[in-house]
Amino acid sequence: MSPSYLVIHGPNLNLLGRREPEVYGSTTLVDIDARLEEWADAQGVEVLSIQSNHEGELIDAIHEAASWADGIVINPGAFTHYSYALRDALAGVGVPAIEVHLSNVHAREAFRHVSVTAPVCRGQIVGLGWRGYLLALQALLEEDGA
Amino acid sequence: MSPSYLVIHGPNLNLLGRREPEVYGSTTLVDIDARLEEWADAQGVEVLSIQSNHEGELIDAIHEAASWADGIVINPGAFTHYSYALRDALAGVGVPAIEVHLSNVHAREAFRHVSVTAPVCRGQIVGLGWRGYLLALQALLEEDGA
Amino acid sequence: MSPSYLVIHGPNLNLLGRREPEVYGSTTLVDIDARLEEWADAQGVEVLSIQSNHEGELIDAIHEAASWADGIVINPGAFTHYSYALRDALAGVGVPAIEVHLSNVHAREAFRHVSVTAPVCRGQIVGLGWRGYLLALQALLEEDGA
Amino acid sequence: MSPSYLVIHGPNLNLLGRREPEVYGSTTLVDIDARLEEWADAQGVEVLSIQSNHEGELIDAIHEAASWADGIVINPGAFTHYSYALRDALAGVGVPAIEVHLSNVHAREAFRHVSVTAPVCRGQIVGLGWRGYLLALQALLEEDGA
Amino acid sequence: MSPSYLVIHGPNLNLLGRREPEVYGSTTLVDIDARLEEWADAQGVEVLSIQSNHEGELIDAIHEAASWADGIVINPGAFTHYSYALRDALAGVGVPAIEVHLSNVHAREAFRHVSVTAPVCRGQIVGLGWRGYLLALQALLEEDGA
Amino acid sequence: MSPSYLVIHGPNLNLLGRREPEVYGSTTLVDIDARLEEWADAQGVEVLSIQSNHEGELIDAIHEAASWADGIVINPGAFTHYSYALRDALAGVGVPAIEVHLSNVHAREAFRHVSVTAPVCRGQIVGLGWRGYLLALQALLEEDGA
Amino acid sequence: MSPSYLVIHGPNLNLLGRREPEVYGSTTLVDIDARLEEWADAQGVEVLSIQSNHEGELIDAIHEAASWADGIVINPGAFTHYSYALRDALAGVGVPAIEVHLSNVHAREAFRHVSVTAPVCRGQIVGLGWRGYLLALQALLEEDGA
Amino acid sequence: MSPSYLVIHGPNLNLLGRREPEVYGSTTLVDIDARLEEWADAQGVEVLSIQSNHEGELIDAIHEAASWADGIVINPGAFTHYSYALRDALAGVGVPAIEVHLSNVHAREAFRHVSVTAPVCRGQIVGLGWRGYLLALQALLEEDGA
Amino acid sequence: MSPSYLVIHGPNLNLLGRREPEVYGSTTLVDIDARLEEWADAQGVEVLSIQSNHEGELIDAIHEAASWADGIVINPGAFTHYSYALRDALAGVGVPAIEVHLSNVHAREAFRHVSVTAPVCRGQIVGLGWRGYLLALQALLEEDGA
Amino acid sequence: MSPSYLVIHGPNLNLLGRREPEVYGSTTLVDIDARLEEWADAQGVEVLSIQSNHEGELIDAIHEAASWADGIVINPGAFTHYSYALRDALAGVGVPAIEVHLSNVHAREAFRHVSVTAPVCRGQIVGLGWRGYLLALQALLEEDGA
Amino acid sequence: MSPSYLVIHGPNLNLLGRREPEVYGSTTLVDIDARLEEWADAQGVEVLSIQSNHEGELIDAIHEAASWADGIVINPGAFTHYSYALRDALAGVGVPAIEVHLSNVHAREAFRHVSVTAPVCRGQIVGLGWRGYLLALQALLEEDGA
Amino acid sequence: MSPSYLVIHGPNLNLLGRREPEVYGSTTLVDIDARLEEWADAQGVEVLSIQSNHEGELIDAIHEAASWADGIVINPGAFTHYSYALRDALAGVGVPAIEVHLSNVHAREAFRHVSVTAPVCRGQIVGLGWRGYLLALQALLEEDGA
Repeated sequence: MSPSYLVIHGPNLNLLGRREPEVYGSTTLVDIDARLEEWADAQGVEVLSIQSNHEGELIDAIHEAASWADGIVINPGAFTHYSYALRDALAGVGVPAIEVHLSNVHAREAFRHVSVTAPVCRGQIVGLGWRGYLLALQALLEEDGA
Repeated sequence: MSPSYLVIHGPNLNLLGRREPEVYGSTTLVDIDARLEEWADAQGVEVLSIQSNHEGELIDAIHEAASWADGIVINPGAFTHYSYALRDALAGVGVPAIEVHLSNVHAREAFRHVSVTAPVCRGQIVGLGWRGYLLALQALLEEDGA
Repeated sequence: MSPSYLVIHGPNLNLLGRREPEVYGSTTLVDIDARLEEWADAQGVEVLSIQSNHEGELIDAIHEAASWADGIVINPGAFTHYSYALRDALAGVGVPAIEVHLSNVHAREAFRHVSVTAPVCRGQIVGLGWRGYLLALQALLEEDGA
Repeated sequence: MSPSYLVIHGPNLNLLGRREPEVYGSTTLVDIDARLEEWADAQGVEVLSIQSNHEGELIDAIHEAASWADGIVINPGAFTHYSYALRDALAGVGVPAIEVHLSNVHAREAFRHVSVTAPVCRGQIVGLGWRGYLLALQALLEEDGA
Repeated sequence: MSPSYLVIHGPNLNLLGRREPEVYGSTTLVDIDARLEEWADAQGVEVLSIQSNHEGELIDAIHEAASWADGIVINPGAFTHYSYALRDALAGVGVPAIEVHLSNVHAREAFRHVSVTAPVCRGQIVGLGWRGYLLALQALLEEDGA
Repeated sequence: MSPSYLVIHGPNLNLLGRREPEVYGSTTLVDIDARLEEWADAQGVEVLSIQSNHEGELIDAIHEAASWADGIVINPGAFTHYSYALRDALAGVGVPAIEVHLSNVHAREAFRHVSVTAPVCRGQIVGLGWRGYLLALQALLEEDGA
Repeated sequence: MSPSYLVIHGPNLNLLGRREPEVYGSTTLVDIDARLEEWADAQGVEVLSIQSNHEGELIDAIHEAASWADGIVINPGAFTHYSYALRDALAGVGVPAIEVHLSNVHAREAFRHVSVTAPVCRGQIVGLGWRGYLLALQALLEEDGA
Repeated sequence: MSPSYLVIHGPNLNLLGRREPEVYGSTTLVDIDARLEEWADAQGVEVLSIQSNHEGELIDAIHEAASWADGIVINPGAFTHYSYALRDALAGVGVPAIEVHLSNVHAREAFRHVSVTAPVCRGQIVGLGWRGYLLALQALLEEDGA
Repeated sequence: MSPSYLVIHGPNLNLLGRREPEVYGSTTLVDIDARLEEWADAQGVEVLSIQSNHEGELIDAIHEAASWADGIVINPGAFTHYSYALRDALAGVGVPAIEVHLSNVHAREAFRHVSVTAPVCRGQIVGLGWRGYLLALQALLEEDGA
Repeated sequence: MSPSYLVIHGPNLNLLGRREPEVYGSTTLVDIDARLEEWADAQGVEVLSIQSNHEGELIDAIHEAASWADGIVINPGAFTHYSYALRDALAGVGVPAIEVHLSNVHAREAFRHVSVTAPVCRGQIVGLGWRGYLLALQALLEEDGA
Repeated sequence: MSPSYLVIHGPNLNLLGRREPEVYGSTTLVDIDARLEEWADAQGVEVLSIQSNHEGELIDAIHEAASWADGIVINPGAFTHYSYALRDALAGVGVPAIEVHLSNVHAREAFRHVSVTAPVCRGQIVGLGWRGYLLALQALLEEDGA
Repeated sequence: MSPSYLVIHGPNLNLLGRREPEVYGSTTLVDIDARLEEWADAQGVEVLSIQSNHEGELIDAIHEAASWADGIVINPGAFTHYSYALRDALAGVGVPAIEVHLSNVHAREAFRHVSVTAPVCRGQIVGLGWRGYLLALQALLEEDGA
């Protein structure tokens, strides 16, 4: 059976490319998902992308992923900074996860770049734009193949 | 077309006037919305009020407001203190917003009066009871007319 | 009329017994609820158990409990550490509540054992496993009978 | 007898409109006082405005206001951040006061937006420009009439 | 041989019921010990209660308990907040212990509710009055029987 | 020549006995100064009392005292918490000084009881009401006579 | 019956005058107690002085004082900084107490001058040497006579 | 027209050379001003020196300097550590300023060497005694001539 | 001309694969460099790898890279946590850089995962082993080609 | 006269070798003291060892040591972290002391390794097991002989 | 013999004028050294300038300066913030030193402006560009001549 | 083969005995090394001593020691407080190491006594002067022989 991955876009990421393009660029979430889809087809793997502004829905999705996904790529958006519930969900299901941030959060203000979710992830990719998602998927896939 | 405003009441504000009246008075949320309605009719403007205990629903409402509202008046309740997701929503849609608190949050315990949402609002009105909502709407309307 | 109690299991507790058994044991939430049910039958009291990963749903349930429950036993899970909205809900309805944690959170890392909900509860039972729920219900019941 | 109010402009506010207009606009303190005067005439109330760069003079004025003023509107300027003496004066005379800031101090650097005077005021209006003073006077007047 | 338990009342608990009844009620330590005695008789177990204002005596008692007690129920009073020596004694003897506090220490001032002894206990029961001791003994007894 | 002392009452102490009597009692500053006067006459010493809400005037008075006073008794009021200028003045003139507070500042909120002036005083008397001034003068006088 | 007072000298104060005279002077504890005795005889009051290096003994003495003493003068020595048990003892017996320190603890390193006992005392006298004990006794006596 | 400079000596600097000579040397403020005068004559520039213990007077002087001075040399004394009002005055008038301290404040206790005024100055000269004023004036003059 | 990249391995990375294999795996630095070489040949780009335990040598190499490299991939090792000099070097030369760490530094102790160099890099790749270097090079190359 | 030393074993060290051997080894306190005795005989010096769980007894012993001991070797156990009274005793008697810990407290959790007693000791030996005591005695003896 | 001075330029200062001219201007280190040379010739003194990115080389140079230099002018660059080794070198050799920074470090981010080297220097000159070096040399020379 | 040890003296220790003898005594590094040599000859072991002010050289030496040394004794000097690179080197080579400080760093200012290298050492010897090195070597040797 081919490997399957869940990609999670957290709160406000549905605004991507439509609001504040000077900060986040003009690429929309639809664009990103299309590129991931393309890559998935080329690799012969499954990628399911979801977006939600509801913390509870993201947790439910992570729980469900435990039964089908070989890996999770997650951009927790603002939940990065306080959602211990999301963190516990990731830790609880035990599916290998990689945290992705589009822009370089380390270059921004002190408080915001603390991630409560990163410690329970396999790794973190920061500041490489939409390619970050792709690199994360590659890393998960290569690890599976190793 | 007449100006339109969204009024958002955050978590637990549905209890207003029914619980702990010695702290928050006996005015209910229905009473407050009725007075805002009255004022809206007198001014010839639209005011839509919503209340929810779900962070995600408030974020969704703010996103939708981007297509119809000229301003937002928001009492984030306890989300004031930790919802960076709400903050990002307000910052993302770019609709001018004013934060309102019924009681003087600055006179209460140190930790609680830090607002993570105020920095992305136009301003903040604190401690003036239900009139705070009205003053906020006036300020938004006058600014539009200026 | 016989006393009635609401038992609330917060985020990720639905994973109990299925994930990380070496930390939390192999008892599932269904097992725990069955034992509470048994106890309730023996005592002639009502116990309603709910679990949700959605902060808003927990708040709604607490609001509704104000009209029927004589007490609340709550394991807020990760919300323990940041949900001021949950805390305000508990404080707002005024139903006596006891906070329960399965493992000894005081024995774990410094930051996590800060509880923002405990101050508005009657008490807290920590580290006694599923018996903690039962002891909490007993305490509420004995207090009612006093 | 008609209601009377004291409006206090703290240190450096005499520079308003003459220095750093890109931050504070080109409206001068004289312009603001004229508009408050106009509003006072229309309402049939008294408004006395003072400005001083001397902490002691502001305290003296607050003490004297205890014998004639029905309310105080105060923009403490930089004293907001450290003048416990000003705070004790406001607390001591017991005249209802509302704190006003022209720009959104919450959107500026962390340290500065802590107000030591707000806890002893009735409320606070922030970020609404010169209209903030007017809204504060309205709130005091309506409260008197209630 | 029937199970035996040591109950330890820390500093100032000899004042119980005789001083500050508005905070701690009118039940005296003698009353509490009588009820524990009663319960012990009914269960056919041994319970030995001691009280001391001397940290060293409490430590000695814990050391001795290692040779005869099946469990310890301890209310360390103010030692809760700083006696690392007491903590080491509990950790050192390895007798299962449960910490009890009469009132809800978590609802009081920030600093005080840090317990340095809880981390080496099996669990902690807080805010349930004298019943807390009883619940702790029950928990220890049931664990033994499991 | 008979010993001479300066007694300094800081900001807002002119309100004493007239405002918030439930906190500070009904004794006015005039009453206190009369009692100090009485004591001075009985001892055959000089006591000069001043009160000001202006930090600069207090500093000037301390500077002048260097040429005539054998000791200073100072209640810095709110300046206690931030006036490093007052502290430098006391340290600079080298006249022995004792700091006095009417109520027990240690029993109030954490931040306020830090005194920046106490380190440069001979000692501090706190919480003993108007008698604190008298005890401070006695201590200075006895030290002179020693 | 003549008023009676307990004077408590905390840990290491028995070294006074014999060790580190350059810091604490050459006056011994015996000298101080002799002077307090003298004053007591002149005033027709009783003064009992004790010294101990054992926290438990100080607590016991405070408990016993509840049945005979009209006031307590206490120099808690190093216990000032951490003995919450001593604090609870003082708060528990409700006998008016005044805390005394020989040297100006505020002029020493930051951490040490935090007193956990002062908040439950009537007041505090600091830095006036052995006279501090005498002034504290005077203050207690005058208050009794008022 | 020849360049003109304002030299501001903050609180307690009038004591210079007369008090604590072992810390600040025996040079008086009059001596320093005479040397600056001398230098000014030699250079053909104007230097006006003022000293005040009143924060408000220093702010007024800075405001007035906006209409005649080409630069400001300021030793804010103890105001360095808390006078945000002074800082706002310097920032408001926009005249280039250099902060001077006679002794090396960095070599003293941690808290004191934080300057709230330095960030709005052009630069800072520390620890070089009275020469620091002269070097500051030279730097302002050379910059004008560049 | 083909793009050229500098790969910098910081202090102790020469131990890779030879020490603590349970933490860092058995891959040596020579192995990693060989794989990067391979990739470089396949892509037709230049990759120069260096390793040093000397902060100054790394700074010198970064300075020299300004004249020939199109990008830098840097694993600063322990310098990540304190070398502001390295940070200034990276910021100063302006060559796009990506920071790489082999293991998940975020899952380790709190203090260590603060990176002073990341803020001046384009991004950061963490926890993906030696593949992190390759992903970083890919990202730089793709960016050049965009 | 031959040199004499006091060896102090603080609270819970009487459990050594009998409890938690996996952490502290199986060597008992009796074993250690025997080895120290042996060494003392060989060197022709006196070594007196005591152990107590009572802070007061340790302080008394230190006071008495002032009249006979040439040095103190102390393992304060848990008192290390909070006993300012012990610290004052050590500082007060002025006998050279060395603090010893059996295991490497620096390698354990942050808070615990803060020692309030070490600053008043001559030195500290950490992590060298029972040999630490011997090395400390040697150091004291060699210093005497120098 | 004519006075001799060592001027030390820390890490990255060799980039001066060649990188980021919008922050540091276009003046190069060669330009600065030329001007210092010119001044030295005019004054008849010796000035030796060195630059290094290696902390160890700077320390070695300071050690050597102990045998020939009458003063040191040092711009430690980024070492300012963490090189306790540099600080110990300056403190160890005892040659009078003045710290220089080209731009106003106080106006930049909080953390960076803490200098660990300033406390062991005679003084500090900040924000006055290349003139800062010259003013520092003048100050050292005048002090020698005094 | 006889055991061999590396002794490392960190930055500025070459100044020992030549600078600030009132703090560090008059013993030079040459003296210390001679004594260690002597001891080594007597024991029939090898001891190699090095000193460097260059962090990189110390790291290189530690790496090389992995192939020949049975233990390391290191006085990291000022690197103690910030050199995570040194720490990683020590942790990486896995040779047992003991940290030595000549004077009692615990008795000095708060910040400095934090050691980042101690957690990866076997133990630490502090405040025993040059004997500390010898005691450390003994401890290593005895451990080998056990």
